[in-house]
Amino acid sequence: MDQAVSQYDIGLDKTPANFVPLSPVSFLERSAHVYSKLPSVVYENRRFTWAETLSRCRRFASWLVRQGIGRGDTVAAILPNVPAMYETHFAVPMAGGVLNALNTRLDAGAIAFMLEHGGAKILLVDPEFSAVITDALSRMKGSKPLVIDVDDAAFSGGRRIGQIEYEAMLASGDPEFVWALPPDEWDAIALSYTSGTTGNPKGVVTHHRGAYLNAVSNILSGGLGQHPIYLWTLPMFHCNGWCFPWTIAAAGGVNVCLRKVDPAKIFELIETHGVTHMCGAPVVYTTLINAPPRGDTTKQSMVSGLVAGASPPVAMIQGAEGIGIKLTHVYGLTEVYGPASVCAEQPGWDDLPAAERAKLKRRQGVAYHLQEDVTVLDPQTMKEVPRDGETIGEVMFRGNIVMKGYLKNESATREAFAGGWFHTGDLGVLDAEGYVMIKDRSKDIIISGGENVSSVEVEDVLYKHPAVLFAAVVAKPDEKWGEVPCAFIELKDGAKATDAEIIAFCRNELPGFKSPKAVVFGPLPKTSTGKIQKFELRNKVKSASAIGGV
Amino acid sequence: MDQAVSQYDIGLDKTPANFVPLSPVSFLERSAHVYSKLPSVVYENRRFTWAETLSRCRRFASWLVRQGIGRGDTVAAILPNVPAMYETHFAVPMAGGVLNALNTRLDAGAIAFMLEHGGAKILLVDPEFSAVITDALSRMKGSKPLVIDVDDAAFSGGRRIGQIEYEAMLASGDPEFVWALPPDEWDAIALSYTSGTTGNPKGVVTHHRGAYLNAVSNILSGGLGQHPIYLWTLPMFHCNGWCFPWTIAAAGGVNVCLRKVDPAKIFELIETHGVTHMCGAPVVYTTLINAPPRGDTTKQSMVSGLVAGASPPVAMIQGAEGIGIKLTHVYGLTEVYGPASVCAEQPGWDDLPAAERAKLKRRQGVAYHLQEDVTVLDPQTMKEVPRDGETIGEVMFRGNIVMKGYLKNESATREAFAGGWFHTGDLGVLDAEGYVMIKDRSKDIIISGGENVSSVEVEDVLYKHPAVLFAAVVAKPDEKWGEVPCAFIELKDGAKATDAEIIAFCRNELPGFKSPKAVVFGPLPKTSTGKIQKFELRNKVKSASAIGGV
Repeated sequence: MDQAVSQYDIGLDKTPANFVPLSPVSFLERSAHVYSKLPSVVYENRRFTWAETLSRCRRFASWLVRQGIGRGDTVAAILPNVPAMYETHFAVPMAGGVLNALNTRLDAGAIAFMLEHGGAKILLVDPEFSAVITDALSRMKGSKPLVIDVDDAAFSGGRRIGQIEYEAMLASGDPEFVWALPPDEWDAIALSYTSGTTGNPKGVVTHHRGAYLNAVSNILSGGLGQHPIYLWTLPMFHCNGWCFPWTIAAAGGVNVCLRKVDPAKIFELIETHGVTHMCGAPVVYTTLINAPPRGDTTKQSMVSGLVAGASPPVAMIQGAEGIGIKLTHVYGLTEVYGPASVCAEQPGWDDLPAAERAKLKRRQGVAYHLQEDVTVLDPQTMKEVPRDGETIGEVMFRGNIVMKGYLKNESATREAFAGGWFHTGDLGVLDAEGYVMIKDRSKDIIISGGENVSSVEVEDVLYKHPAVLFAAVVAKPDEKWGEVPCAFIELKDGAKATDAEIIAFCRNELPGFKSPKAVVFGPLPKTSTGKIQKFELRNKVKSASAIGGV
Repeated sequence: MDQAVSQYDIGLDKTPANFVPLSPVSFLERSAHVYSKLPSVVYENRRFTWAETLSRCRRFASWLVRQGIGRGDTVAAILPNVPAMYETHFAVPMAGGVLNALNTRLDAGAIAFMLEHGGAKILLVDPEFSAVITDALSRMKGSKPLVIDVDDAAFSGGRRIGQIEYEAMLASGDPEFVWALPPDEWDAIALSYTSGTTGNPKGVVTHHRGAYLNAVSNILSGGLGQHPIYLWTLPMFHCNGWCFPWTIAAAGGVNVCLRKVDPAKIFELIETHGVTHMCGAPVVYTTLINAPPRGDTTKQSMVSGLVAGASPPVAMIQGAEGIGIKLTHVYGLTEVYGPASVCAEQPGWDDLPAAERAKLKRRQGVAYHLQEDVTVLDPQTMKEVPRDGETIGEVMFRGNIVMKGYLKNESATREAFAGGWFHTGDLGVLDAEGYVMIKDRSKDIIISGGENVSSVEVEDVLYKHPAVLFAAVVAKPDEKWGEVPCAFIELKDGAKATDAEIIAFCRNELPGFKSPKAVVFGPLPKTSTGKIQKFELRNKVKSASAIGGV
């Protein structure tokens, strides 16, 4: 392509009139202007309008600037889905800062590491986490962040450990504070640590441009339309709530906040507020499906639910429909701002039998509207695998909804972006339609007698068993076959099953080498976002194998 | 704000994995992948799928590259809304070129000027325009473009005047051509000449970034959702069809093509294809409202119509609802890629009486979702006018949906962007909700006895008169008052009215100084996009006044 100067390059430069850095904070300004009196955030008996939310964020940002926070300074928060957490997603970037939202289930050691590594200057703390934060701060070697307590009338317990309380801080701020967009849309907006299972977690740095584009993609790919009523079942600390704080501002919707996932409360909020959309890991939906039923769902309109975090079992997709939730499967990782691919629905799916539809819907799918590409490549040749549903390669993303990189970790960044694609570490195939379908994490594949066994495939069969609440399959060392599948199962309340029954059930649906050879019953270890922690199960298998158990 | 290097600036650079120039051509790739077998373009008895449209565009782009078209080369087209015109919007930027879509109603002199000024190397021609183009080419002094004839079985007349026919050209192209995104999203994508009423037209240069963002904004602000069935009542040559060629690709919708605005045909296509969305100037809707009615509209779902080009009269918004079209008023100019503001609907409007709702809906409104800002500023102080609905200022835009500038016209570009805003030349007010409401073009304001009279306000009253089809009000020189309003009226078929009746009708609704002092009946001069050409009416008044007429 000719790169010489053309007539279109002369006298047609960027000016403040025709070029503005893309930042999701702009969405808040727009909704505060256009929908000033409409509800923005509701939580327990508190209600805010979009004008009020903007005014509170401006107060907060002005206070941050007065504390010396500026471009590239880190502000951390360990908060449930309360209004302050929502506001933090706007106020911190308004001040030029970078938001480091901390997983509320972390231990003191991990938190101390993140606060030191990210260099947090300010830390917002909910009373529920006052003890673990006190412990974490005492472990820090360098300078400690200034702590803001975020009191919550809906929570009893914990104590104030900070220098100022959130509402008092806001009261001292300037509601007319004139904030500025970042000088460059490539500037960092957030820092999110991955839950690394070995070694120290990695700090994923995202930017304003990507957050803006993914926030809009959520509207398009999730079918949010105008004024969605969004229930905060997904933690905002998890990849910044998949960018939904910014999405809901862009769509002029309502944020229905929620301290924790409690089925009775969720059903109540859906009814009271007329919730239209929600997000969550499979565990959220499984919990709802197995909870005492909500009222007469036939009278209510369906809730659209996005599900990600693990491939949703067919039984779960069907079960969700039964309680009035229509699921769309999205897929991603912290490195791609949460979900950045969607199992895009095709016309006609609604006419299919539920089981067939569910099978189609559990694929990882195609790139989000504003993501450039997701596909499956052979990591050696970087060539796309054939669309045969069988050839396994690595799932990779490319486009503007991919992180800046890992903080202070150039080698990991380089490795993640090798060959011009972001390497997810997930193994998958492309089917005839070109949809990505994940078979496993690379370390989750079981190799039995030289054959690859996808643990996802075996788990999917297990989830069809009426007694199974959660299931996970990992490799168990075996003298004859090298590895064999071992199933860990958490049964539904009051349900019973034996290992022989479970194995027979699988043998009925799977070839012999794919069926579990051992079954272990008991509660499964899960991360705060509902991912089953397979590494713990693998450790259990290894130590048990060493002493001849399982 | 501290601009020093922060930890987030180090080792976190752009790479091909995490940065891709924004270009609306990407939407075609996505739809061809995700919705390969779904219909993309239908026209008469021709139907294409998204996979076919991509393949045809790749053929076309490969052929352009073989002809030497590269970055910054201009490709012009004078075509109605046929499939080739749709494909041109993708194939030209795929080759790195810049699309100059020509208004099909231009005369040979204007076309010759544009082809020379824009430096078109290729020109696509529909047979309907073979004569005017032959004339235009003969007037050109420099090198002439290579001409592609785009035959159309649905049109009889005209003749081939080019070097190759469109389908033959495609047949010689490469359906697997590997195209590249522009090296920079700021690169030009289109050149569109404004219909300047004095002097030479100005060449508005738009870029990939803005086209991408406005294409997405159309989905959000127009409520398009997934898979809209879009009827091409708006000419694609007009600001690239307000970016809708790219919008429909992004939404995976169907482009229902249409050679010309013909009410019977439009009603037929709406029914046959289940049209969900359309766009047009007020004249399009007025024509439909006053045409023989379509079938039983109660059985059909409403069509969403975007209207722009002039403030839609209250009577028109009500009338459209009566024939099953729910209008949303959007506003913009060629310089902002077509519409870049929307009269955003507020919850509750649907419950209002139709007349009250129509009054709210005719305002220009607020910025498009992905446009940064539109407001009314005092052009002297560049301060926002108060939200009093009365203080007149100039409507101005700012953001990424603003042109690069005017081609080879740095002074006009500088003037248009003075003070960091794009100056529209439209005069308006802000109401209490902060919605922009245009009162007039600066040259359209009538100053009568020192009082400002908005011609729009007077026209709105005239449109309520049952005999009035079109109305326009301009200033008439007056010895006593300086200027007085003069009304030009085109009556409905078979309707009758006298000037005294019209004046009395206005006096009943307006203060004396705002009521027309003279009325002229007859067909009104209109541009191809349905804007009434007030400058012609003003000329008429001036010459008539000079000889004591009107």
